[in-house]
Amino acid sequence: MKRRQFLARAGVAAAAPIAAAGPLAAPALAQGKIEWKMVTSWPKNAPGVGINAQRLADRITALSEGRLSVKLYSAGELVPPFGGFDAVTSGAAELCHATPYYWSGKAKALHYFTGVPFGLTAPEMMGWIYFGGAQALWDEVYAPFGVKGFYVGSSGVQSGGWFRNEVKSAADLKGLKFRIAGLGGDVMKKLGVIVTLTPPGEIFAAMQSGAVDAAEWVGPWNDLAFGLHRIAKFYYQPGFFEPGPALELLVDKKKFDALPPILQKVIEQASQATAAETLADFTRHNIEALEPLVREHGVQMKLWPADVVKASGKAWKEVQAEVAASDALTGKVNASFNAYLTKARRWARWSDYAMLRAREDGLA
Amino acid sequence: MKRRQFLARAGVAAAAPIAAAGPLAAPALAQGKIEWKMVTSWPKNAPGVGINAQRLADRITALSEGRLSVKLYSAGELVPPFGGFDAVTSGAAELCHATPYYWSGKAKALHYFTGVPFGLTAPEMMGWIYFGGAQALWDEVYAPFGVKGFYVGSSGVQSGGWFRNEVKSAADLKGLKFRIAGLGGDVMKKLGVIVTLTPPGEIFAAMQSGAVDAAEWVGPWNDLAFGLHRIAKFYYQPGFFEPGPALELLVDKKKFDALPPILQKVIEQASQATAAETLADFTRHNIEALEPLVREHGVQMKLWPADVVKASGKAWKEVQAEVAASDALTGKVNASFNAYLTKARRWARWSDYAMLRAREDGLA
Repeated sequence: MKRRQFLARAGVAAAAPIAAAGPLAAPALAQGKIEWKMVTSWPKNAPGVGINAQRLADRITALSEGRLSVKLYSAGELVPPFGGFDAVTSGAAELCHATPYYWSGKAKALHYFTGVPFGLTAPEMMGWIYFGGAQALWDEVYAPFGVKGFYVGSSGVQSGGWFRNEVKSAADLKGLKFRIAGLGGDVMKKLGVIVTLTPPGEIFAAMQSGAVDAAEWVGPWNDLAFGLHRIAKFYYQPGFFEPGPALELLVDKKKFDALPPILQKVIEQASQATAAETLADFTRHNIEALEPLVREHGVQMKLWPADVVKASGKAWKEVQAEVAASDALTGKVNASFNAYLTKARRWARWSDYAMLRAREDGLA
Repeated sequence: MKRRQFLARAGVAAAAPIAAAGPLAAPALAQGKIEWKMVTSWPKNAPGVGINAQRLADRITALSEGRLSVKLYSAGELVPPFGGFDAVTSGAAELCHATPYYWSGKAKALHYFTGVPFGLTAPEMMGWIYFGGAQALWDEVYAPFGVKGFYVGSSGVQSGGWFRNEVKSAADLKGLKFRIAGLGGDVMKKLGVIVTLTPPGEIFAAMQSGAVDAAEWVGPWNDLAFGLHRIAKFYYQPGFFEPGPALELLVDKKKFDALPPILQKVIEQASQATAAETLADFTRHNIEALEPLVREHGVQMKLWPADVVKASGKAWKEVQAEVAASDALTGKVNASFNAYLTKARRWARWSDYAMLRAREDGLA
């Protein structure tokens, strides 16, 4: 799908959810029903993120039988793409679908609840959040701001980024202007990269105008929809900065606590159902998008040169030490994350890694 | 946890859910509320499977605000461990938490909805079921029996099994009595193994008595709870017969269709929430269980010898051709599965496999 088509289709589809929610608004309020606003960082109906946010809103509305009706606002409709946290803390919106590290300026520890370079895969991350003590830590980080985060899924392993020219060694990265989010940006800075964090909806334009030389967004499915293959042909794998980044539903804690228990349960369970659906959605669509990228659009799939991975790993250890030292709570979160990751790596060598290798050996 | 402790704790915990559901029963029926029975193939409170089945039952009851109250019966309580399918089709129970290939005697195609050797990982499987057309195929397979299956999660990559003696090459497998489930058993038969499918709750006893020489169950967490490390010390990885096996909620289709739409929605969404929770639960607990197995119990972790993987891959291709030829619908399911797997393997090489490798290289 070309970018213009994507935007056009998005525009057409955009009206539907709002129009559908519209007629409900007045009678809903009249019957003592609750209407909440969900802002997002995503363009309207962006594959994966935008559509899954819409499905989460619809799921809460449906499971609550309209007692809690959620209306979605895409990036820029109510607040700017990165304005979700302020919207929820100021009371302008009750909910925000985004990812925790977008608010890392408020609390460094939030990076870990999205994920960090060379960190956890999506199933490992779900294990840490749901059963490894991370939800309690996450609640502790958010408590001073009066908000709470729910895990709502992941893209799975992300891609490393689109480059106009081949990256033959770490030296080729020096001086490049690269759109990259999160701590991966800090890692890249140590490799001499000039890092910018362009909002999702503006990445294509930044690439087209030359404001950036290279950009990472998500993976084949989402990047194809944004049209990044039209500008750069070298597609580097994997996105070792983001092995299993988490999406979040950010909630105004005070308003959440004031809800009847059944509506709290609905938000919690709808988030969990969205977690499964979102991972499935990205996985399936990345699987399908790879072939057209390569066959129809002439994209060259590339693994990072070994020295880029090595240098990035070394740089990440330095960045991680700095991040962990920023405050006591971030140090505590880092320690929990690291302890779990060490064990997760050990198990992955026998399970996921050994399995993917055995699958290739067995079916060869 | 030793097996006796496990069984003792399971026994203590066993009474709770039923006692809790008890007092609700009479008034619930009096108010026109619905009570459903959920049977399972699992011992009471078996980690992962038994506990996640209980959580699913509780989730449906809670989200429906008691309008649909679900009572769980462990293996043997109402019907035998592998009696779930007959219980649902005969009307003795409305729900069953198990895995589709336990009913492959009824329809060969059901193997694919659990997963097949050298097949899909858990996230890939979720992608195929939710977004890759597999739910419609699954519905088609179950239609003649008047049942419907919902995907409710996975253990992730399973382990290959417990062996009393080291397996140095494929020749060492010949004549061994091996407890193994699913099509992996048919693959092993081609390698000269004597295959038995002992019910989950009887695996320890079968190993202890020498009725079997070797056994696979799930992975470190579940196998530790069953005490298999007390009998055999060689633990082979990965369980290439089961890369991401699916658990299912089997439902009486006629009774499901007769439910009010909101209760149908509750079952569907509770299943999806359970899918995320179950994968997270297994992942986290396998990660934690590996260390005690090795450090405290002297278990020797082993990768399968290369010739076992090669021979199994070759045997699987023969088994798959036989299975696919059993009837037209199985052939159709096999074709869908294969087409998706081919693309999934291509993407996994750039994403999951490349990422797990980069993580080790970067953090080395």
